[in-house]
Amino acid sequence: MTGVAGSVARAAGEACSARVLAFDVFGTVVDWHGGIAREVRALRPRVDADQFALAWRAGYQPAMQRVRSGQLGWTLIDDLHRLILDQILDRFGLADLTEAEKSHLNKAWHRLDPWPDVVAGLTRLKSRYMICTLSNGNIGLLANMAKRARLPWDCILSAEVFRAYKPDPASYLGVARVFDVPPDEVLLVAAHQDDLAAARACGLQTAYVERPAEFGAANPKDASPNPANTWHVRDFSELADQLGC
Amino acid sequence: MTGVAGSVARAAGEACSARVLAFDVFGTVVDWHGGIAREVRALRPRVDADQFALAWRAGYQPAMQRVRSGQLGWTLIDDLHRLILDQILDRFGLADLTEAEKSHLNKAWHRLDPWPDVVAGLTRLKSRYMICTLSNGNIGLLANMAKRARLPWDCILSAEVFRAYKPDPASYLGVARVFDVPPDEVLLVAAHQDDLAAARACGLQTAYVERPAEFGAANPKDASPNPANTWHVRDFSELADQLGC
Repeated sequence: MTGVAGSVARAAGEACSARVLAFDVFGTVVDWHGGIAREVRALRPRVDADQFALAWRAGYQPAMQRVRSGQLGWTLIDDLHRLILDQILDRFGLADLTEAEKSHLNKAWHRLDPWPDVVAGLTRLKSRYMICTLSNGNIGLLANMAKRARLPWDCILSAEVFRAYKPDPASYLGVARVFDVPPDEVLLVAAHQDDLAAARACGLQTAYVERPAEFGAANPKDASPNPANTWHVRDFSELADQLGC
Repeated sequence: MTGVAGSVARAAGEACSARVLAFDVFGTVVDWHGGIAREVRALRPRVDADQFALAWRAGYQPAMQRVRSGQLGWTLIDDLHRLILDQILDRFGLADLTEAEKSHLNKAWHRLDPWPDVVAGLTRLKSRYMICTLSNGNIGLLANMAKRARLPWDCILSAEVFRAYKPDPASYLGVARVFDVPPDEVLLVAAHQDDLAAARACGLQTAYVERPAEFGAANPKDASPNPANTWHVRDFSELADQLGC
């Protein structure tokens, strides 16, 4: 474990001991803010698309918390997204959307674009590692997204497989179990320190990816390093360099 | 529904109304008999590799039945394969294998080769349809197999996702649910009439693929058409032709 010093203490190109790279998806692989803003703007050009995207995403953790706490039974993210959408339509002057428009908008999460470095970076990483998703997004959402954006996953893993949302340990340990490897041979790649901290507590290696524009160019986020992570990279291209691909 | 007449009643190249193609794997996509025989022969050249492969596979349905009946709790195929292997080692003079050799041999199911038409056929089919596995094999097995054999799945679905072995309706209907489509927009592709019959009972479309050498060249199987199937094809190349790819 070299911490932030990953890029210092480890020689560039030194391979990592992980065999499986598991990727967080929303924010890490795809630009949810840009995609949601683009789709709502296409429906209603005068809506505050930036604030709409932030509001929809802000409902995400509280909605999952209702499932984690048992208040809601097991619910797919598609359905949680719809619950949140229905709660915010009024606020953004979108109450007049037809059911077909709402249903289409709800699946905007299936049509998010990857960050520019993603496809080339994943393709390099795939040459040496098993690469899979580990997202709270449902399997169908992740498969539709991958097909549209040509994300070359070896395997799509989701909270839906484990019936446990991150940061439940069952999700991180589930990846190790699926591939029959010890937890420290799984490396979680994410743009969120809380996700990485939970993975680390389960014994996984962790890589933080800076995605400063995750919340939109107007809302830059803190992407400073945390020495607890095994690796800290700017993007998937740098990750591939660091991991010897 | 055109039955065997698929190739007659439907114009070649006419697209199918399915959006998702779900593939059985053992026997349909990969040659388990040839792969298992090859691996055991590499370990012990004098073993009757043909009979060994048949005996191992013959334990498969009874082992799953123990899970279906509740006699065994939910068990991954890797573990069922190991239970069966341990039961037949003696009979084939393999009781002296080391634990490392047994463990390696057990994962021979991860290293099976596809039939020669598979990779090119799947690549064509992927251009028009969502292509996924629907196998009783566990996710890790299917992902390792796909990576080694370069099978271009959009998504790996398994009994493990649904915690129900085929022919449990939960497995076939699970595919439709994952992709949020009605059952008749899923087409199951398999070399086994019983698998296809169970899928049809759930409302799926079905395609039978002839794999006459599934049990080895010395044991040709009956691959005659059943008019109840939507399609009947020789291989994945013909399937791609029929499905308009």
